[in-house]
Amino acid sequence: MSTLADPQYREHGPAADGVARAACCVSAPGQETLEATEAEALAGRFKALADPNRLRILSIVSSSPGAETCVCDLSEPLGLSQPTVSHHLKIMVEAGLLHREKRGVWAYFSLVPGALDSLAATLKPKA
Amino acid sequence: MSTLADPQYREHGPAADGVARAACCVSAPGQETLEATEAEALAGRFKALADPNRLRILSIVSSSPGAETCVCDLSEPLGLSQPTVSHHLKIMVEAGLLHREKRGVWAYFSLVPGALDSLAATLKPKA
Repeated sequence: MSTLADPQYREHGPAADGVARAACCVSAPGQETLEATEAEALAGRFKALADPNRLRILSIVSSSPGAETCVCDLSEPLGLSQPTVSHHLKIMVEAGLLHREKRGVWAYFSLVPGALDSLAATLKPKA
Repeated sequence: MSTLADPQYREHGPAADGVARAACCVSAPGQETLEATEAEALAGRFKALADPNRLRILSIVSSSPGAETCVCDLSEPLGLSQPTVSHHLKIMVEAGLLHREKRGVWAYFSLVPGALDSLAATLKPKA
Protein backbone atom coordinates (compact mmCIF):
# COMPACT_ATOMS: atom_id res chain seq x y z
CA MET A 1 0.00 0.00 0.00
CA SER A 2 1.27 3.44 -0.82
CA THR A 3 1.49 6.44 1.38
CA LEU A 4 -0.73 9.39 0.69
CA ALA A 5 1.13 12.05 -1.27
CA ASP A 6 -0.10 14.53 1.26
CA PRO A 7 0.02 12.89 4.70
CA GLN A 8 -2.83 14.18 6.80
CA TYR A 9 -0.92 15.06 9.88
CA ARG A 10 -0.71 18.50 11.25
CA GLU A 11 0.09 20.20 14.49
CA HIS A 12 -2.46 22.50 15.96
CA GLY A 13 -0.93 25.78 16.91
CA PRO A 14 -2.97 28.33 18.84
CA ALA A 15 -6.37 27.35 17.50
CA ALA A 16 -8.21 29.96 15.53
CA ASP A 17 -11.51 28.46 16.59
CA GLY A 18 -10.68 28.07 20.25
CA VAL A 19 -11.06 25.23 22.70
CA ALA A 20 -12.97 22.85 20.49
CA ARG A 21 -10.26 22.87 17.84
CA ALA A 22 -7.45 22.66 20.37
CA ALA A 23 -9.04 19.52 21.86
CA CYS A 24 -8.72 17.70 18.55
CA CYS A 25 -6.33 14.83 17.96
CA VAL A 26 -3.10 15.07 16.01
CA SER A 27 -2.15 12.33 13.61
CA ALA A 28 1.43 11.10 13.65
CA PRO A 29 3.67 11.80 10.66
CA GLY A 30 4.76 9.12 8.22
CA GLN A 31 1.76 6.82 8.59
CA GLU A 32 0.66 4.85 5.55
CA THR A 33 -2.86 5.45 4.43
CA LEU A 34 -4.82 4.38 1.41
CA GLU A 35 -4.54 6.45 -1.77
CA ALA A 36 -7.70 7.48 -3.58
CA THR A 37 -7.03 5.37 -6.69
CA GLU A 38 -6.17 2.30 -4.63
CA ALA A 39 -9.30 2.83 -2.54
CA GLU A 40 -11.40 2.95 -5.73
CA ALA A 41 -10.07 -0.41 -6.92
CA LEU A 42 -10.51 -2.04 -3.52
CA ALA A 43 -14.03 -0.68 -3.11
CA GLY A 44 -14.95 -2.27 -6.44
CA ARG A 45 -13.92 -5.68 -5.13
CA PHE A 46 -15.79 -5.23 -1.88
CA LYS A 47 -18.84 -4.18 -3.90
CA ALA A 48 -18.67 -7.52 -5.68
CA LEU A 49 -18.84 -9.15 -2.23
CA ALA A 50 -21.63 -6.91 -0.96
CA ASP A 51 -24.43 -9.23 -2.00
CA PRO A 52 -25.64 -12.29 -0.09
CA ASN A 53 -26.13 -14.41 -3.21
CA ARG A 54 -22.65 -13.66 -4.46
CA LEU A 55 -21.20 -14.57 -1.07
CA ARG A 56 -23.12 -17.85 -1.16
CA ILE A 57 -21.82 -18.55 -4.66
CA LEU A 58 -18.24 -17.99 -3.45
CA SER A 59 -18.92 -20.25 -0.51
CA ILE A 60 -20.26 -23.02 -2.74
CA VAL A 61 -17.37 -22.67 -5.19
CA SER A 62 -14.74 -22.78 -2.45
CA SER A 63 -16.43 -25.80 -0.84
CA SER A 64 -16.65 -27.74 -4.07
CA PRO A 65 -14.21 -30.50 -4.97
CA GLY A 66 -11.28 -28.88 -6.73
CA ALA A 67 -12.73 -25.50 -5.72
CA GLU A 68 -14.58 -25.45 -9.02
CA THR A 69 -18.31 -25.40 -9.66
CA CYS A 70 -20.39 -25.79 -12.78
CA VAL A 71 -22.81 -22.95 -13.40
CA CYS A 72 -25.47 -25.66 -13.68
CA ASP A 73 -24.98 -26.59 -10.01
CA LEU A 74 -25.66 -23.14 -8.59
CA SER A 75 -29.27 -22.37 -9.47
CA GLU A 76 -30.81 -25.05 -7.30
CA PRO A 77 -29.02 -24.46 -3.95
CA LEU A 78 -29.41 -20.70 -4.31
CA GLY A 79 -33.02 -20.83 -5.43
CA LEU A 80 -32.21 -18.41 -8.24
CA SER A 81 -32.84 -18.49 -11.98
CA GLN A 82 -29.98 -19.30 -14.32
CA PRO A 83 -29.84 -15.73 -15.72
CA THR A 84 -29.65 -14.29 -12.20
CA VAL A 85 -26.86 -16.68 -11.26
CA SER A 86 -25.03 -15.76 -14.48
CA HIS A 87 -25.40 -12.06 -13.67
CA HIS A 88 -23.79 -12.55 -10.25
CA LEU A 89 -21.02 -14.72 -11.70
CA LYS A 90 -20.22 -12.10 -14.32
CA ILE A 91 -19.79 -9.44 -11.63
CA MET A 92 -17.40 -11.64 -9.70
CA VAL A 93 -15.40 -12.56 -12.81
CA GLU A 94 -15.10 -8.85 -13.68
CA ALA A 95 -14.00 -8.10 -10.12
CA GLY A 96 -11.20 -10.67 -10.46
CA LEU A 97 -12.62 -12.98 -7.80
CA LEU A 98 -13.72 -15.87 -10.01
CA HIS A 99 -12.18 -17.51 -13.04
CA ARG A 100 -14.49 -18.80 -15.79
CA GLU A 101 -13.70 -21.73 -18.04
CA LYS A 102 -16.02 -23.03 -20.72
CA ARG A 103 -15.93 -26.80 -21.20
CA GLY A 104 -18.47 -28.29 -23.55
CA VAL A 105 -21.83 -26.62 -23.02
CA TRP A 106 -21.18 -25.62 -19.41
CA ALA A 107 -19.07 -22.92 -17.83
CA TYR A 108 -17.07 -23.81 -14.73
CA PHE A 109 -16.09 -21.29 -12.10
CA SER A 110 -13.15 -21.38 -9.73
CA LEU A 111 -11.62 -18.95 -7.25
CA VAL A 112 -8.87 -16.75 -8.68
CA PRO A 113 -5.83 -17.90 -6.68
CA GLY A 114 -4.92 -15.36 -3.99
CA ALA A 115 -7.70 -12.91 -4.82
CA LEU A 116 -9.65 -13.39 -1.60
CA ASP A 117 -6.45 -13.68 0.41
CA SER A 118 -5.16 -10.37 -0.85
CA LEU A 119 -8.50 -8.76 -0.15
CA ALA A 120 -8.46 -10.22 3.35
CA ALA A 121 -4.95 -8.82 3.85
CA THR A 122 -6.21 -5.29 3.23
CA LEU A 123 -8.53 -5.68 6.23
CA LYS A 124 -5.77 -6.44 8.70
CA PRO A 125 -5.31 -3.49 10.99
CA LYS A 126 -1.75 -2.19 10.90
CA ALA A 127 0.45 -3.32 13.77
CA MET B 1 -20.08 -20.98 9.70
CA SER B 2 -23.07 -23.24 9.48
CA THR B 3 -23.84 -25.83 6.92
CA LEU B 4 -26.68 -25.32 4.53
CA ALA B 5 -29.79 -27.13 5.71
CA ASP B 6 -30.07 -28.59 2.27
CA PRO B 7 -26.58 -29.46 1.07
CA GLN B 8 -26.39 -28.98 -2.64
CA TYR B 9 -24.82 -32.21 -3.58
CA ARG B 10 -26.46 -34.72 -5.78
CA GLU B 11 -25.45 -37.59 -7.92
CA HIS B 12 -26.33 -37.49 -11.55
CA GLY B 13 -28.00 -40.65 -12.64
CA PRO B 14 -28.75 -41.27 -16.28
CA ALA B 15 -29.20 -37.66 -17.34
CA ALA B 16 -32.61 -36.70 -18.60
CA ASP B 17 -31.05 -34.00 -20.72
CA GLY B 18 -28.21 -36.08 -22.08
CA VAL B 19 -24.51 -35.46 -22.41
CA ALA B 20 -24.44 -31.85 -21.34
CA ARG B 21 -26.00 -32.68 -17.99
CA ALA B 22 -23.85 -35.73 -17.45
CA ALA B 23 -20.71 -33.62 -17.99
CA CYS B 24 -21.60 -31.45 -15.01
CA CYS B 25 -19.71 -31.50 -11.76
CA VAL B 26 -20.90 -33.17 -8.57
CA SER B 27 -20.34 -31.43 -5.26
CA ALA B 28 -19.13 -33.55 -2.38
CA PRO B 29 -21.47 -34.23 0.53
CA GLY B 30 -21.04 -32.61 3.91
CA GLN B 31 -19.32 -29.43 2.75
CA GLU B 32 -19.94 -26.27 4.72
CA THR B 33 -21.49 -23.44 2.81
CA LEU B 34 -22.89 -20.11 3.82
CA GLU B 35 -26.49 -19.94 5.02
CA ALA B 36 -28.76 -17.28 3.57
CA THR B 37 -29.17 -15.33 6.84
CA GLU B 38 -25.43 -15.39 7.53
CA ALA B 39 -24.78 -14.25 3.96
CA GLU B 40 -27.18 -11.32 4.45
CA ALA B 41 -25.32 -10.13 7.54
CA LEU B 42 -21.91 -10.51 5.91
CA ALA B 43 -23.02 -8.74 2.74
CA GLY B 44 -24.10 -5.77 4.87
CA ARG B 45 -20.60 -5.45 6.28
CA PHE B 46 -18.98 -5.73 2.87
CA LYS B 47 -21.40 -3.08 1.61
CA ALA B 48 -20.05 -0.76 4.30
CA LEU B 49 -16.58 -1.36 2.82
CA ALA B 50 -17.71 -0.96 -0.79
CA ASP B 51 -16.93 2.75 -0.95
CA PRO B 52 -13.51 4.31 -1.54
CA ASN B 53 -14.05 7.12 0.97
CA ARG B 54 -15.07 4.69 3.69
CA LEU B 55 -12.00 2.56 2.99
CA ARG B 56 -9.82 5.66 3.24
CA ILE B 57 -11.47 6.59 6.53
CA LEU B 58 -10.73 3.10 7.91
CA SER B 59 -7.17 3.42 6.68
CA ILE B 60 -6.73 6.78 8.38
CA VAL B 61 -8.30 5.55 11.63
CA SER B 62 -6.13 2.42 11.74
CA SER B 63 -2.99 4.45 11.00
CA SER B 64 -3.71 7.02 13.69
CA PRO B 65 -2.01 6.97 17.08
CA GLY B 66 -4.07 4.75 19.34
CA ALA B 67 -6.07 3.71 16.25
CA GLU B 68 -8.46 6.55 17.03
CA THR B 69 -9.30 9.60 14.93
CA CYS B 70 -11.27 12.73 15.62
CA VAL B 71 -14.04 13.40 13.15
CA CYS B 72 -12.48 16.84 12.77
CA ASP B 73 -9.32 15.31 11.29
CA LEU B 74 -11.01 13.48 8.44
CA SER B 75 -12.53 16.18 6.25
CA GLU B 76 -9.27 17.70 5.10
CA PRO B 77 -7.31 14.59 4.00
CA LEU B 78 -10.39 13.17 2.28
CA GLY B 79 -11.41 16.42 0.63
CA LEU B 80 -14.98 15.87 1.80
CA SER B 81 -17.45 18.04 3.69
CA GLN B 82 -18.09 17.35 7.36
CA PRO B 83 -21.67 16.11 6.71
CA THR B 84 -20.40 13.67 4.05
CA VAL B 85 -17.72 12.36 6.39
CA SER B 86 -20.33 11.97 9.14
CA HIS B 87 -22.59 10.07 6.75
CA HIS B 88 -19.82 7.58 5.96
CA LEU B 89 -18.87 7.24 9.62
CA LYS B 90 -22.48 6.51 10.57
CA ILE B 91 -22.65 3.66 8.03
CA MET B 92 -19.49 2.11 9.42
CA VAL B 93 -20.66 2.46 13.03
CA GLU B 94 -23.96 0.80 12.11
CA ALA B 95 -22.07 -1.99 10.34
CA GLY B 96 -20.10 -2.65 13.52
CA LEU B 97 -16.77 -1.65 12.01
CA LEU B 98 -16.17 1.59 13.92
CA HIS B 99 -16.79 2.62 17.50
CA ARG B 100 -17.88 6.20 18.22
CA GLU B 101 -17.08 8.08 21.42
CA LYS B 102 -18.12 11.66 22.08
CA ARG B 103 -15.60 13.68 24.11
CA GLY B 104 -16.30 17.35 24.52
CA VAL B 105 -17.53 18.78 21.25
CA TRP B 106 -15.86 16.20 19.04
CA ALA B 107 -16.61 12.58 18.28
CA TYR B 108 -13.70 10.15 18.12
CA PHE B 109 -13.74 6.99 16.04
CA SER B 110 -11.82 3.78 16.57
CA LEU B 111 -11.84 0.32 14.99
CA VAL B 112 -14.15 -2.17 16.69
CA PRO B 113 -11.67 -4.78 17.96
CA GLY B 114 -11.70 -7.91 15.83
CA ALA B 115 -14.36 -6.67 13.40
CA LEU B 116 -12.08 -6.41 10.38
CA ASP B 117 -10.22 -9.55 11.38
CA SER B 118 -13.39 -11.60 11.53
CA LEU B 119 -14.48 -10.20 8.18
CA ALA B 120 -11.07 -11.08 6.74
CA ALA B 121 -11.43 -14.61 8.12
CA THR B 122 -14.60 -15.14 6.09
CA LEU B 123 -12.58 -14.55 2.92
CA LYS B 124 -10.09 -17.32 3.60
CA PRO B 125 -10.74 -20.16 1.17
CA LYS B 126 -11.40 -23.40 3.00
CA ALA B 127 -8.46 -25.77 3.19
